[in-house]
This record gives sequence, C-alpha cells and structure tokens, in this order.
Amino acid sequence: MSKVRRRRGAPSLDDVAGNGLINRRALLGSGISFAGALGATGTMNGAAAEPLADAPWSLEFGQITPALQTPSPFEKDVTRALSNPNGEFRNSHARTPHQLLGGTVTPNALHFSINHCGIPNIDPAQHKLVIHGMVRQPLEFTLESLSRYPLVSRMAFVECAGNSAPMFSKVPLQTTVQMLHGLVSNSEWTGVPLSMLLDEAGIDPKGKWLIAEGADAQMLDRSVPVKKAYDDALIAIYQNGERLMPGNGYPMRLLLPGYQGNMNVKFIRRIKVVDQPAYSYFETKNYSQILPGGKTWRFHFVMEVKSFITHPSFGLSLKEPGLYAISGVAYSGTGRIAKVLVSADGGKSWGEAALQGPIHEKAFTRFVMPWRWDGQPATLLSRAIDDGGNVQPLRAEFVAQRGEAEKPVTTPLAFPNQHYNSTTSWAVDGKGEVKHVYA
Amino acid sequence: MSKVRRRRGAPSLDDVAGNGLINRRALLGSGISFAGALGATGTMNGAAAEPLADAPWSLEFGQITPALQTPSPFEKDVTRALSNPNGEFRNSHARTPHQLLGGTVTPNALHFSINHCGIPNIDPAQHKLVIHGMVRQPLEFTLESLSRYPLVSRMAFVECAGNSAPMFSKVPLQTTVQMLHGLVSNSEWTGVPLSMLLDEAGIDPKGKWLIAEGADAQMLDRSVPVKKAYDDALIAIYQNGERLMPGNGYPMRLLLPGYQGNMNVKFIRRIKVVDQPAYSYFETKNYSQILPGGKTWRFHFVMEVKSFITHPSFGLSLKEPGLYAISGVAYSGTGRIAKVLVSADGGKSWGEAALQGPIHEKAFTRFVMPWRWDGQPATLLSRAIDDGGNVQPLRAEFVAQRGEAEKPVTTPLAFPNQHYNSTTSWAVDGKGEVKHVYA
Repeated sequence: MSKVRRRRGAPSLDDVAGNGLINRRALLGSGISFAGALGATGTMNGAAAEPLADAPWSLEFGQITPALQTPSPFEKDVTRALSNPNGEFRNSHARTPHQLLGGTVTPNALHFSINHCGIPNIDPAQHKLVIHGMVRQPLEFTLESLSRYPLVSRMAFVECAGNSAPMFSKVPLQTTVQMLHGLVSNSEWTGVPLSMLLDEAGIDPKGKWLIAEGADAQMLDRSVPVKKAYDDALIAIYQNGERLMPGNGYPMRLLLPGYQGNMNVKFIRRIKVVDQPAYSYFETKNYSQILPGGKTWRFHFVMEVKSFITHPSFGLSLKEPGLYAISGVAYSGTGRIAKVLVSADGGKSWGEAALQGPIHEKAFTRFVMPWRWDGQPATLLSRAIDDGGNVQPLRAEFVAQRGEAEKPVTTPLAFPNQHYNSTTSWAVDGKGEVKHVYA
Repeated sequence: MSKVRRRRGAPSLDDVAGNGLINRRALLGSGISFAGALGATGTMNGAAAEPLADAPWSLEFGQITPALQTPSPFEKDVTRALSNPNGEFRNSHARTPHQLLGGTVTPNALHFSINHCGIPNIDPAQHKLVIHGMVRQPLEFTLESLSRYPLVSRMAFVECAGNSAPMFSKVPLQTTVQMLHGLVSNSEWTGVPLSMLLDEAGIDPKGKWLIAEGADAQMLDRSVPVKKAYDDALIAIYQNGERLMPGNGYPMRLLLPGYQGNMNVKFIRRIKVVDQPAYSYFETKNYSQILPGGKTWRFHFVMEVKSFITHPSFGLSLKEPGLYAISGVAYSGTGRIAKVLVSADGGKSWGEAALQGPIHEKAFTRFVMPWRWDGQPATLLSRAIDDGGNVQPLRAEFVAQRGEAEKPVTTPLAFPNQHYNSTTSWAVDGKGEVKHVYA
C-alpha cells in the first residue's frame, strides 16, 4: 500500500464543549477522515480484521418468506411497555421504546397508544363521520368516500399531554426513555385536509369552534378552534402507508399537528361546528394544566419544544471508553427544530448537534453529536430550540413556572401533571452505567 | 344560516386536459372552495347527513392493548403476494400491495423481499462485517460497534431490477399493481455512511471497486464503484425506525440509493476493495440487461425514472361517476421527481399532477390529480420526469430501445428481462371496471 485516500480541508476534531464533545462538522461529510484523526487513539469502533469463518446461516437454506414480515426473534424485546397488560376495565397505556429505535419514523407496531375503554373493532363499511352544526349542509363521510379525495401526507409527531409526567417527581425516577417519554411517536400521516370538508359543508362565519367526538365507548369530545382546522388539520386514513392501527384510530382520526394527543380524536365520528368551546369533561378536568398556587390554564393545546437523548440512556451502558455518538429526538408543536444543544458536563458547556435533514415542521428531528468518552463520569443532556425561538427550559426554570409533584412519585405510570417539556439528564459513571439525574 | 365562509381568489375548476382532468391548483389549498364549485353537480363525496346512531363498538369496552399492535382484522387482505408460499427450495418473492396503500412510506411488514435461499436467522451478536482488500488496515464491525457511529437517515426506494418485468409481455397482463410493480418499496433507512468506514480502513487510490457479499446461503456478491460508496451509500441498520426486517437484510445491509435492488446486498458480511469488477455470476448472468439484437449491457446499475397510478387501478373499480383523485407513486434512481404528467385520454392530452412534498432524492413521491369521471370510457396513465430531465418513456419508445418478450408471458411471476420503466395504462370502462392496457 503506497498512498491512502485522504480528503482535503478536513477540520480538526477539536472539542467544541467540555467533556469530549466533538466538532459537529465532523458529521457533515464534507471532507474529513475519521481514520486519520482516530489513528492515534485507535479506530472509532472497528477492530483489526481476522479471516471470517462461515456462520451456520451461511451454509443452510433459510426460513420461509411470509406474507407479513416481522422483526427478527433477536429483537423480541423491542415492544411497547404496557400499563394494563391483562386488559382490566380501566385505561391502558402502551409506550414506544425510543431507546431501541433509530431514525425518526416510529414503526406502526410500536406507535404509542392510550385507550380508556379498550380498542374498538370498527367495521369501516359501517363507520361514518358526520360534519354538522353551524354549516350550510350537514355532510356524512365514509372511509370509502374519503379515499376518493385528493389526499395529502405529512410527517407529524403525536404526543400525549401526559408524556414525561413522571419527571414532575422531585426525585428523578430510575427508568428508561420508554417509561419517561414513550407517549410520543412520529409517523407519516395521510388524509383529507379538514378544511376541504368544512368548505364543502359551508361553515357559518360565527362558527369558531369544532367539537370533535370519537366512536369508541369513551366517546371523548374535545373543542378545536376552527382556525386550527384551516391551518393544518387532517382527517387521517393512512399511517406510514397503511390504514391506521386500531389503537391509533382506525378507520379515521383527527390529526392536529403539534396539539396534545387526546385532541387528535381517534375513531372520529362527529365534528360539530359551534360558536364556543364545549368545556367538556375531558378539557376541563382530565387534561387541564395545573399551575403552582392552584391556578389552572383553561386551554393549553400546543406541545412545546422538547428533546431527549435516546443513546446513551438509562439501561444502555457504555462498555469501554472511546468514541460514541450521542443521539436523540427533538420536536416542537409550533414549528421546525432550529437547533439542538448538547452538554456532556451537566450544562456547564454546550455544543451544537448535527440535525438530520430534512427537518419537518411539527415532527421528529434526530440530532447527533460525536463524543469521546474518557472513562470519567459525565452528565449528558440536550436542549432544543425551534424556529420560533422557543427554547426548551432547563429543569429549574420549568419547575419554577409549572411546579412539580408535591407527593412522592413512585411509578412512571403516574400522571401528576401535564405538558412536561424540560431537559432530561443522564449521568454516566466511571463504569459506563447510566443513571437518570436532574442536572 | 346567513353567510357561508368563502375564500377569495378561487380559480375555476376548468379542465386542464381531456376527459375530466381538473386544474391541479385546486389541490394546493391556496384559497379554493370545493363546495361552491361542486354545488352544481353535488358534493365531491359527502352525502347529506342523517342522525347518527350508536354503533355496537360505541357501547362496549373494546379489546386489550397489545405490546405490538397489528392492523385491523378488516385489513387482513393487505398482505404481500407470495411466489413461493410453501417455502420450497427455490427463490421466493413477496410483493408490496401498492394499490392498498397511501402516502409514501412502505410499512416494514409489507416491504418487498426476494430470497433465493430462504431467510437466514442471523444472531446479531455473531454477525460481522469485514472491510478488506486494498486498504491500509482491514477492519471488522459488529452491529453493536456500528451503532456507536454518528448515524444518518434518509428516505430511499429499493427496487428489484426485475420489477415490472411482466410488462415486457406483448399482451398486457390483467393483474394488480402489486403483481406488476410490487418489487419496489420505500423506507426511511438509517445507518453509517460507508465512506466513513472506508476512510477508517484507508483505501488505496487504485481501489476503484468494492465487492460486496452477503452472509446468507446465496452468498450473492456484486461489484460496486467506490465512487458510489462515497456518494451516498450506507451500511443500514434501521428501517423505518426499527432494526431491519430479516427479509430485508437483518442485521445490516448495503444501501445504494437508486441502484438495482440486488446490489443493496443484504446480510452484508464482506466488502473487499479491488481494482476491477468481480464479474460475478450475479452481475454477468442473472442481472444482465438484454437488448434487442442479442446485445447485453455489462452493467446497468441505476433504476430509471418511473411512475405508476395506484388509484384507481386493476381491481379497484369505480362505483359511480363523479369526482375522484388519481393517485400514484413516482421515483427516479438519479435524483428527485420534478414533474408527473397524467392523462385520462390514453396520452392524447396531459395535465400536471400535484406532487406531495417534501420531495426526497431517490425516494417515492406521491402525485395526485383530481378527475371528474363522467361515466364514459377513459384511459389513465402517468409519466414522470426527474430533475435531471430524464423522462419516463412511453411504451412504444421503450420497446423500440429495450425490446419485449418474444415468448408469451403467461404469469406475472415471469422475468423476461430487467429494468422496465415505461408507463402503465389503466382503461376504465363504462361500468367503472379497470383493465390493464397498453396505451
């Protein structure tokens, strides 16, 4: 070997913040040799190769190709965590295992789902959506009739207002990203713009609100501003290319990008145009935002800017010092992610992470920050900023404004309050074990 | 009701091409009232509403929330079509049911898969990828070590070179989009840029080719230009957020966006850097492009610009005259889709379809064209153009250059030749039944 391919203009791998955070330009592929820079301390992760023996699966005919393919048996632990696995007559939460996923799409099998009265088995040939109230002509739609419309698709996260609620605890719970933040997921949703259907029905100008109601036994109803319907609401009928999952609203749901999950009414069957909010049980009691001092916000629709690190995180320990990528997801209910800052020293210094494009509005953006772990304790956290200038609050700021749980929180299944969007910190100890801390 | 909400500046719904194709601006949401325009001939699909009775599922507690959610039982026919359902000792093809999907993402359960020696059950803790040959230092990677790298994600289609092969038949086969075009799918793939690993190994400048080899019993090997590796190749380890499906290369595959499917070597275990192609069996025999007059192209890597209409299509009949959306997917192995033209009169006149954004490079783009079917016979087809100016050929043009099957093609499972990318035409008769024709 004479010469080695090298690229020109490679920046140095100088740290950009404390405790080993590396210049993010290293990720942008515009001419850097990881090899050269890493030669001194070994390769990033590659080990010197030895002759490769044939594995058993290289020598035998494999398994049958099935009509519906499923993950490898080696991935059997990649499942949703269930709050009510036996289907008792109460609500049920299934959480997405973000610490085991990559990219930005949540596979349909793993999209979070909350069902207060079980999952209805709806016959799509029988289900109807009615738009009525203050309209020129009430209209009725079926899955088949909606399928004839010019459909639009968009990436969007859906997040339960109670996602991350265990972080209202005064003491950080030692649990996974899944248990802390598993009530948010991200999909490509395809459906009919609600504005098109409302135009067809003809809204009275005095009709400023919609009351959206689901067809399951919960019959959840929520008030939605007409303005939101004309902004970006869909009646969604496909999720990541296929019909909606039963636990995500089959055969049709309201999609209100960026608004709290329960307002994205599943199994939607009625939209009534009215001149004022319904003040339904679900909006005045269940999903209220309780503030310090006993006040409550009447409406708090938007899920605010947020991020969390998925790799590494609780349960994913580091085996040895060396180079790693710190990676996680960021999103904002008001727009696009503009920037994600990452710290490896508990917030003393911050580096700017690389964002994977394209960056969709009101959807997951994955961020990545290369990190050289020297084997010493480190505290990792991320902080997102959206294109409206909204900054994810640090924990102390958040608690001062929104409060924390007064009673001890003993389980991540608890919901002391709503709309938690502060930073999540992971402390790596000298052995590479990861704990949840409040930095 | 006094006034009805109306938008200003709404363009007329004048036809933009023959046989009912409607101005695509109608889709762009910039101020049009479908209702007003449709008032004369009835609403698009909404029917006058009557009081909505409670369905049985509104009155009873539903089903248990499962750890992995699956589609509704009412969607049981949304499966891949299998060429070898009993797993006989031969190759096996599973095709994606595009006529039953929406949006652009192919759910993992439905991603197409071709397996020549069954699907290996690979233990990810045992599997290794070796990069060797003309490199400074041979390297070895595991799924775990690759997971530590800064990963990137991208949408990309993967298409078998033999997709659409039954369309080489001189007589159009009467079968579904799935059977004609089901060997292409589209996913978000996440992995390590191959360039990063090659830089780490240090390529000899004389090394212009890679020989990529899979770990299943087929041990397929293909030659890949080093230039492609540095352009946009990945070692993919996640597919739509979760680990790869076993039939799509678990635990790791080569992803060469836009290149024919088999070159995206699944279960990848070796990449050897060499100074000339391997001329392996698979590239000199199996995947050769045979031209009229007995000539053959040695290499033909790129899947060329293509589109097909999924709705309506064979098997999806129209029940009544009225407004419909003609919808389908377009993609190009060389870049982004720039434009899709749609005809409803067999190619006599064309209108420009709306493209759903964002438009990703070398990935599915869905197009939509509103259409007023008057109940008379119509012939629908689509024609895609990419941002490099490549135009999907009409069938006569294509056949003149690439030939057609000399022997009768009696089954859509046949592969008379490779790289079919011409237009697909659907003839709608007066009853709304859809046939496959060559327009």
